[in-house]
Order: sequence, then C-alpha cells, then structure tokens
Amino acid sequence: MSDTASLIPLSDLPLVRPGDDLAALLAAALERRIGKLLTPGDVLVVAQKVVSKAEGRYVDLARVEPRAETQRLASEIDKDPRLVQVILDESRRVVRHRPGVLIVEHRLGFVMANAGIDRSNIDPAMGAEPVLLLPRDPDAFAASLREKLGAQFGAAPAVIVSDSFGRAWRRGTTGTALGSAGLPALIDMRGHADLYGRELRVTEIGFADEIAAAASLLMGQADEAIPAVLIRGLMWSAPAQPASELIRAAEEDLFR
Amino acid sequence: MSDTASLIPLSDLPLVRPGDDLAALLAAALERRIGKLLTPGDVLVVAQKVVSKAEGRYVDLARVEPRAETQRLASEIDKDPRLVQVILDESRRVVRHRPGVLIVEHRLGFVMANAGIDRSNIDPAMGAEPVLLLPRDPDAFAASLREKLGAQFGAAPAVIVSDSFGRAWRRGTTGTALGSAGLPALIDMRGHADLYGRELRVTEIGFADEIAAAASLLMGQADEAIPAVLIRGLMWSAPAQPASELIRAAEEDLFR
Repeated sequence: MSDTASLIPLSDLPLVRPGDDLAALLAAALERRIGKLLTPGDVLVVAQKVVSKAEGRYVDLARVEPRAETQRLASEIDKDPRLVQVILDESRRVVRHRPGVLIVEHRLGFVMANAGIDRSNIDPAMGAEPVLLLPRDPDAFAASLREKLGAQFGAAPAVIVSDSFGRAWRRGTTGTALGSAGLPALIDMRGHADLYGRELRVTEIGFADEIAAAASLLMGQADEAIPAVLIRGLMWSAPAQPASELIRAAEEDLFR
Repeated sequence: MSDTASLIPLSDLPLVRPGDDLAALLAAALERRIGKLLTPGDVLVVAQKVVSKAEGRYVDLARVEPRAETQRLASEIDKDPRLVQVILDESRRVVRHRPGVLIVEHRLGFVMANAGIDRSNIDPAMGAEPVLLLPRDPDAFAASLREKLGAQFGAAPAVIVSDSFGRAWRRGTTGTALGSAGLPALIDMRGHADLYGRELRVTEIGFADEIAAAASLLMGQADEAIPAVLIRGLMWSAPAQPASELIRAAEEDLFR
C-alpha cells in the first residue's frame, strides 16, 4: 500500500427511479469516466440512497397508521408518529431514545439513528409524504453489482454500499459500509507482529468502513451530484468477506 | 468537491526519537515527495505514534507501581496491573470494562480502549518495558505543525493527527482525528436544504474523522513505513475548528 490512491467521483448519474437498472447506469457512468479499464484494487462505493431508490424502497407516510405504543414513544421523542412507526417496522429494537433522538437496531443489525430512513433528497412524486428505507440486502446488492460490472468490464471491482452513520461519543456522521463484495470488510491483524516482534495493539481494521468514509469526503451531503466514487490504488491480501461481518454481535457489544 | 482527490503516502521518515524536530522531518519528507508546492485544500495526516515519539511520551512499566484498587480491576479484566495503572493515570474515568477490554474517557475526552496507550512498534531502547501515551495536546501540535509548514512552504496545509479507534456496535478500528488545524473538523449542514427544499437527514459531518479514515487506508498497521499521508483535492468552506469539537459532550452522550 505504498503508492498513491485516488478518489474518483462519478457525478453524471441520472436521477434514479424504482426499477431502474442501477448496474447499467453505474457501468455507463464508470465507462464515461475511466473507459473500459478496471484494475485490481479498484473499489466502487455506491451511496445507499441510489440503491434504495432503484429498489423502490419508498413508504408513504400518508398511508401509515401508528400503533398506540408508537404514539406514546413518538410524543416522548417529539417525532412524527407515522415516521416512528416506519422506523420501528424496520427495526429489531430500540437501543436508546430521548427527545429528537431514536437509535435502533435495524433488522439487518446496524445500530443507527432512525433505521437509516431518509426524508431528504426524495422525489416528491414517490408519494404524498415519501420516505426511503435502506436497501433490502446491501451485501447481496454489492455482490450482484460486482458480478454485473465484472461481466461488462472483464474485471470485477470490489463494491461497497455506503451510508452516513452517527457514532457514540463523537459528533458528526462518517461514511460507513452497509454492504460489500470482493474485499475484506474487516482485516484481521492478529498473528502479525510489529517491527520489534510484539503483538499489535490494533487487531482488526474496519477496512470497508474506512473506504466508505473516504468516499464520503467526495459525496457531500446536500445533493445527489456524486452518488458513487471509484477508489483506486488500494491493496489487500485478506480474503473477501461481506460488510455484515462489521456488525459486532449484540452479546459482545458493551454499548447496547 | 467534484474532481479527483489523491492520497499520497510519505514513507521515508526516519525512526522518530524523543526531542526530534518532527516538523522538520515531515517537511523534508513532504518536499522529497511533492517538491515545494502545497496547494489550497492539502491536508497532511500524521499518525499519533510519531507525534508521541517525538514528544517522548514513554512510560516504563518496570517503574510503575499499581495501586490496590488497580490490582483488583486488572485481575478482573486480565490485564497487566502496571499497564492498567498507566491507563487510569491518563483517564478521567472508566466507561466500560470486561475481561480483555478497558474502555475509558481519556483526559482529553476521547472515549477509547486503553487510553490509546500502545506497546507495539516501540523502540525497546526507550525503557525496560516501554509503552507510549497519546500526544500531550494533539490540536496544539496540529496548529504548530501547520504554522511551521506554512512558514517553510509558503502555503500552510491543514493538519490532522490521527489514531485508530474502535467503535461501539461495529468491529474493527477506523482512523480517527485526535487533533486538527486549518480545516473544519465538523461540517454543520443545518440550514442547508436538499434538492427539493427539505431538511437534510445528516446535520453534521465528521469531516476530520473521514479524512483520518481515508489516510488510515494507506498507513496500514504492521509497521511505521507510512506515518503520514498527504490528501489533495478536498474542498471546504466552513470555518476551521479543532478536532476537540468532534468529542460529544458527556451530558449529550447516550452511550457512556
């Protein structure tokens, strides 16, 4: 990993609608930007929002009827009860709440605010009051996109589906890997020794999360101008494993 | 932020010893790599370990006498009581512990494992059993390095002092900003609207942490070959503010 790496934004994707062939749209954007040449170590990071849009993961709040216990929670945290109902429907359980804040364990295991549900940058044509859920299965989407791009380009890039996550203890969101394929989401350093033969302090690196954070630097937040970033020049030797491996098992987690 | 950004590793720094002029060493490494030309938006990310080494932040475990209550905690979590004593001396309080795990609030506010204290990649000449503490004041170091590089290059890069942090809920470490100068550690998106005039879901971006994570992709973990990374091509308009702003106030934190 000793030479330069590049972050290459893909900015000319059309607005994505339910049923769109996102792989084809991304392949075309990639080809416009870099031609036909994918190289080993290339990682394509795709914002979850375009994946969710292609999958049509909209829910119309105008059609949601919150349950009684949801009404109580919503009033406690001062959020729209219909939105809270959609969040709870996407979640296994509430981890923490307080006015303005609802942190849940998403059905896929992510601990995150509002189950990742988004009201911003959503086409109003998608409902009276549309919100957008996370993709159905981000690891599976990443694997499928990787396969399709491989077939079209002759070489398959690694793929990450990214989102912005808040953190315990620190302000601000950072890009985080919801799904991945073709790279080690986690790099296990155990068994490696340091320069002087001692055990390393860091034993596992959240590789896919670091890549998602890097991509997020270009994606910005205010518009959809950059829904995907190609990262070139990284190297890894660990076997590929999906981003779901990044989720700490609840029984090993001291913070939920 | 619509064009390519680059991550440029600086790999030829000598081993750093207490009292070394790290700014001079980094300036020389920078100049060998990119000549005299720093450009607006350049960010130099420096691994905390070389900062700590230059500051001589070594403690020799052979000279540490753990207190009685430290002995009890150390035996509960199965760690060297002398190391636990050094960790507690660097910390305001213990946040969580269990066998093998000690998460504290560092004196500077960071919630992290072992107060960031490191036994790996440390020159054995620094004591019988040397360990290395975090830098004294990472924001101040970043500001001072930025000023010195500005004087030497004519343009001052932004500077981040980075470390690898574990996370609640997710496995693996990610690069995180301990200190920064010359850039907004946190970008406040409140007041911005989305494409359709709605409020954004993400209100604050952990910009300096995302940059530290990106640099960490090149720094690796097994050796000191890459103690600094120059990131080019980022842009920002928010005012500069130090990385200490990234620490969530204890009273606003639901997870400690």
